[in-house]
Amino acid sequence: MLAVFDDAPAIRHGLAFECALARAQAVAGLLSPGIAETIAEACATLTIDPRDLAQEAALAGTLAIPLVARLRAALAGEAARAVHHGATSQDVADTILMLQVKDAARLLLADTARIGGALAPLADRHAAMPAIGRTLMQDAVPIGFGLRIAQWHAGIDDAAQRLSNEVAANARLQLGGAAGTRAGLEGQGAVIATRMAEMLGLAAGVPWHGRRVGIAAIAAALGVLIGALGKMARDVSLLARNAVGEAREPAVAGRGGSSAMAHKRNPTGCQIALSAAIRAPGLVASILGGLPQEEERGLGGWQAEAPVLADLFLLAAGGAAAMATVAEGLEIDAAAIARNLDAANSGADIGESQAIVAAILSHHRTAR
Amino acid sequence: MLAVFDDAPAIRHGLAFECALARAQAVAGLLSPGIAETIAEACATLTIDPRDLAQEAALAGTLAIPLVARLRAALAGEAARAVHHGATSQDVADTILMLQVKDAARLLLADTARIGGALAPLADRHAAMPAIGRTLMQDAVPIGFGLRIAQWHAGIDDAAQRLSNEVAANARLQLGGAAGTRAGLEGQGAVIATRMAEMLGLAAGVPWHGRRVGIAAIAAALGVLIGALGKMARDVSLLARNAVGEAREPAVAGRGGSSAMAHKRNPTGCQIALSAAIRAPGLVASILGGLPQEEERGLGGWQAEAPVLADLFLLAAGGAAAMATVAEGLEIDAAAIARNLDAANSGADIGESQAIVAAILSHHRTAR
Amino acid sequence: MLAVFDDAPAIRHGLAFECALARAQAVAGLLSPGIAETIAEACATLTIDPRDLAQEAALAGTLAIPLVARLRAALAGEAARAVHHGATSQDVADTILMLQVKDAARLLLADTARIGGALAPLADRHAAMPAIGRTLMQDAVPIGFGLRIAQWHAGIDDAAQRLSNEVAANARLQLGGAAGTRAGLEGQGAVIATRMAEMLGLAAGVPWHGRRVGIAAIAAALGVLIGALGKMARDVSLLARNAVGEAREPAVAGRGGSSAMAHKRNPTGCQIALSAAIRAPGLVASILGGLPQEEERGLGGWQAEAPVLADLFLLAAGGAAAMATVAEGLEIDAAAIARNLDAANSGADIGESQAIVAAILSHHRTAR
Amino acid sequence: MLAVFDDAPAIRHGLAFECALARAQAVAGLLSPGIAETIAEACATLTIDPRDLAQEAALAGTLAIPLVARLRAALAGEAARAVHHGATSQDVADTILMLQVKDAARLLLADTARIGGALAPLADRHAAMPAIGRTLMQDAVPIGFGLRIAQWHAGIDDAAQRLSNEVAANARLQLGGAAGTRAGLEGQGAVIATRMAEMLGLAAGVPWHGRRVGIAAIAAALGVLIGALGKMARDVSLLARNAVGEAREPAVAGRGGSSAMAHKRNPTGCQIALSAAIRAPGLVASILGGLPQEEERGLGGWQAEAPVLADLFLLAAGGAAAMATVAEGLEIDAAAIARNLDAANSGADIGESQAIVAAILSHHRTAR
Repeated sequence: MLAVFDDAPAIRHGLAFECALARAQAVAGLLSPGIAETIAEACATLTIDPRDLAQEAALAGTLAIPLVARLRAALAGEAARAVHHGATSQDVADTILMLQVKDAARLLLADTARIGGALAPLADRHAAMPAIGRTLMQDAVPIGFGLRIAQWHAGIDDAAQRLSNEVAANARLQLGGAAGTRAGLEGQGAVIATRMAEMLGLAAGVPWHGRRVGIAAIAAALGVLIGALGKMARDVSLLARNAVGEAREPAVAGRGGSSAMAHKRNPTGCQIALSAAIRAPGLVASILGGLPQEEERGLGGWQAEAPVLADLFLLAAGGAAAMATVAEGLEIDAAAIARNLDAANSGADIGESQAIVAAILSHHRTAR
Repeated sequence: MLAVFDDAPAIRHGLAFECALARAQAVAGLLSPGIAETIAEACATLTIDPRDLAQEAALAGTLAIPLVARLRAALAGEAARAVHHGATSQDVADTILMLQVKDAARLLLADTARIGGALAPLADRHAAMPAIGRTLMQDAVPIGFGLRIAQWHAGIDDAAQRLSNEVAANARLQLGGAAGTRAGLEGQGAVIATRMAEMLGLAAGVPWHGRRVGIAAIAAALGVLIGALGKMARDVSLLARNAVGEAREPAVAGRGGSSAMAHKRNPTGCQIALSAAIRAPGLVASILGGLPQEEERGLGGWQAEAPVLADLFLLAAGGAAAMATVAEGLEIDAAAIARNLDAANSGADIGESQAIVAAILSHHRTAR
Repeated sequence: MLAVFDDAPAIRHGLAFECALARAQAVAGLLSPGIAETIAEACATLTIDPRDLAQEAALAGTLAIPLVARLRAALAGEAARAVHHGATSQDVADTILMLQVKDAARLLLADTARIGGALAPLADRHAAMPAIGRTLMQDAVPIGFGLRIAQWHAGIDDAAQRLSNEVAANARLQLGGAAGTRAGLEGQGAVIATRMAEMLGLAAGVPWHGRRVGIAAIAAALGVLIGALGKMARDVSLLARNAVGEAREPAVAGRGGSSAMAHKRNPTGCQIALSAAIRAPGLVASILGGLPQEEERGLGGWQAEAPVLADLFLLAAGGAAAMATVAEGLEIDAAAIARNLDAANSGADIGESQAIVAAILSHHRTAR
Repeated sequence: MLAVFDDAPAIRHGLAFECALARAQAVAGLLSPGIAETIAEACATLTIDPRDLAQEAALAGTLAIPLVARLRAALAGEAARAVHHGATSQDVADTILMLQVKDAARLLLADTARIGGALAPLADRHAAMPAIGRTLMQDAVPIGFGLRIAQWHAGIDDAAQRLSNEVAANARLQLGGAAGTRAGLEGQGAVIATRMAEMLGLAAGVPWHGRRVGIAAIAAALGVLIGALGKMARDVSLLARNAVGEAREPAVAGRGGSSAMAHKRNPTGCQIALSAAIRAPGLVASILGGLPQEEERGLGGWQAEAPVLADLFLLAAGGAAAMATVAEGLEIDAAAIARNLDAANSGADIGESQAIVAAILSHHRTAR
């Protein structure tokens, strides 16, 4: 996931934008196919040291400006004049971000699918095993142990589905030009944009420079998913308490040790997901706080989004990978479960736990 | 909107829950129809002073406990024993909240529809009127004035649609009993829940006591909508600057005055929406921060949600009503627009503004 | 605490502002003492129905405008003209808020002092009692049981001290007039402000209409305090787990019951403090998000602060009162502590626990 | 600032901790001076590739564990056994973070001092220049132009002072051992800690593994400072509007350009500070959200802090450097100021603007 948001793919995506722009303009008749291919060729072969570009980008306020400058410098004549025609730097920056979002969501949803793949059979297998249920942090009445697991699965799968939907709807090409009017495209803006979106694998549509609700919806969906992962982590960490011992995360070599207590086995997977769940709400708030951006393209609002969105994906990915490992290796201690149930002295009526587990598993089998 | 989240409707919703529970149990054969109707009758006629109940609720930590106690006291014999059977206080509290959410969303979406109804024709009418576009807070290149308006509309309508979808999907009956297993319902829990959901006009499904992603998704959708309203307010307040003067909100009697400067006309509608947009991100963060709740029913997490969700609806409603008034009475000054365009010395090429406006208006005509 | 932020005291504080303004202007020679006393008399005797005023305030955007209008209507001639002279509505609104802050902080710090008063001797008494320490949610090595308590005390006391300092420094009179220049006060603005501050019991200083760092610092201090209370609540709720049982909060009549499980004793005090700790971070973010307010007096930013600050005080007060009750009645189970220590098989070396407790207790004995 | 939070200084600080620990134990008589110097020598000469360590740290959950392992491997016999004695990995991690905080605050406060150094004379020079004041985004009544500048200065300086105080009070050595009891230090823990704090230039005191109010206070102070910088940026960006033109930020080569509009001069400095002000509130909320950490050393809470604190310092540093450049080169257009004042038709009474400026400048001359 770190690689998705690195400078190198950002440069690659930016060049893909310029390549698609030239080719789509050729299709629409604004540019000769030869010039378009000259530009495409330059986009394919230009090599840029990410570190050099990062410095210039920091000064320019966006990576797009020095990127286009270098691309133009690699060309000559009409091709040099034609490159980036009709586009503005935010078109490039937003499209790069959306391409990163697509890649990031794909990676992330593979891990949430792993979690579902591990939790569903685990829930099924333990649906009828009586265990003490706990409410307001106190022993309450019995549940089927698998019901707890099925609820984790339902929450994570629901959140993953929402993220998937929001990314499909909102990972959108940006092409509007200086003020979002598609001026200079000879009335072919919609055609060019549709063509570019196809080439880049993004949704098409009108420009959205100052309208950031799509990004906010993606960020919020990430925040909800991270919270759902945190819910599972909270429960696993409580089940793994020494005095409870009903379940614990698998031992991972090099992980969960203590520099002072060699015997300890810390729930480090849960730690990663809980840490993410502490950080995510504020990051979502940061994105929402930037929504009232000024006019056609705002000052400070959209520029704040990319690093925050990257952080949210990194936290979600870290939490999902950690919980996938926990789900796949979860050690369940039937004896401890029975002992704790017995101590609670609440009988063993697990109500309709099995039916609820079945309903959840039947509802949440979406592959993404 | 204040009325929706008041104590009186909460009590009414709580009694509706108990009434539906009794009737659905009668349908499922757990209770004789006569007893169910005795309970229903008591739910319909019981009068409770909200202030008395509020005090007991504050002590008990939830309104459900004293509410059920009073209802039971109003009954006798089998009916008194049967009332609330199979339910827990969180079942009542969550169902009350979801009924409030449904009512609140209905009110709110009526106001966002008013905004759309006012902005769409305004955007259409001004689509071809050249105006200076502004980016990074500076004059840039021309746009059609209606494009800016259409973008407000698109953002608000998109956000309203998302909220509508999330409420439809997640305003869900809660019925799980003490630990979410539907114990004590003789295997008829799913049938009873489905029937209750129908009676109450909520979505059905399995218990979700500790799985709060649905509430988080509703809260996030509200946060996005409030931000979209804030975007429009930000722009109107900038257009209404004395040195710009391209548009201003309508005068409302008793509003926008100044105790020190009688001549001033303050953009008070924008103020309401901007103030809401400042407050909402943190409230969404609060809801997200509560997601990692403990076990079957958590400690502190779900109890924190109701007041925050109410605040979000109140802020959204305030912002939407204010922006509806602004949209319906927006005063557009064509002369100022022309003067500012002229001063910018950027020509009058508005690109494909008209086509983009048309695309937006055709896409966003959903009635809700 | 609800009473502090009610409309009635707000009206009283607003009238106190106008009274102090008139009297201070008389001292500075801008107004005859007789006129000042006529105004003071009207401020003392005017009765306003808070509900009527609330409606007008909602429309006007601030309580100050209708308040001044009514006060002026109750006067005649020169007194009617002189009232509110040199002030703007934000002067009144900000001063009301600061008077509420002072009252609220006093109440709140009384409860945090109660906590300290209960925790300090408890920590002292149990400083040498060996108990298992827990890190990363797992049994670790022994501690003195009182060390855990002393750490709660240190955190809460440190946070309370910070709040006390920030309120003393930043609960400041506002007097600047329409644009914060103190125009119309004949060069006597500083004298008048100093005098008013004395009369009202607030800090004096220059106008701060657009400079809200003081309010943000108070809000942040509240957020830190609520978090420190939440830390204690988290620990108590973990100690009270059935399988641990080392401590639990006292039984409070009418509290902590369950509508479904009569035998349960829920940690309802901890619930209140944890719920507050979930809500507070977002509220602090809301206040910080409003800091970049526009120019001399902004649009939406300062108007968003009062309800958020009130919520923070209410949450802090609820959490502090709950934790005071918990601290004063905390039930410590020495047998359970010994049993858990034994089970951990980590010896009984509590290191310098006693010395650390002593150091904390000696450092944190501040009375406020 | 990036360098402060890099892995290389983190490693250096970690080795400094181990060196100080050994030397302080020698002073306290727990270790022979020779062994201490052997360890100190190893700390001084050990070279570690930050990239290798980062991978191991990611797995271990903290940099401290692989760092100590490598240091121990570089030693033999008694020195290898003695290194890190009495400490836990969080002792190292927290102390590293506090050393970074000290370095970061020093850098940051140098930039806020630059801002004050530039704004103070600017405010003084323009104190008497009449300009139109603006409230609720509308022209109001006149102010001295320097008053606006003095208010920026007061806000930033107040916030910088708060940060300086919180860092001085809370950048504290961590030394507690596995459960915060200083076990294994033969009763010399307080002496050793005091000595280590002196060596490392940090405040001394008792362990604070689970008590994070100091870190929260530093984070909050950063949030307030970033907001105060954002306030200045908001105002400058509004003053630089084409139709207003009263002030604009200096041209910086390579900055503020547009890939589509070569003539534009974007307020890129303001953009940096405004962007930071959008992101900071959520980051502060993240830190506050982690306060209710579990027991002696929590799971997920403290692990979430370091990257968030680093982000806050980076945002503050970016905003402060940008605003320092803006302050030092601010272009003020007296003709535009006069023209706008004239257009507002509000006279030229600037009230006590000059006196207020003088009061602010006299109060805020603190050097840090």
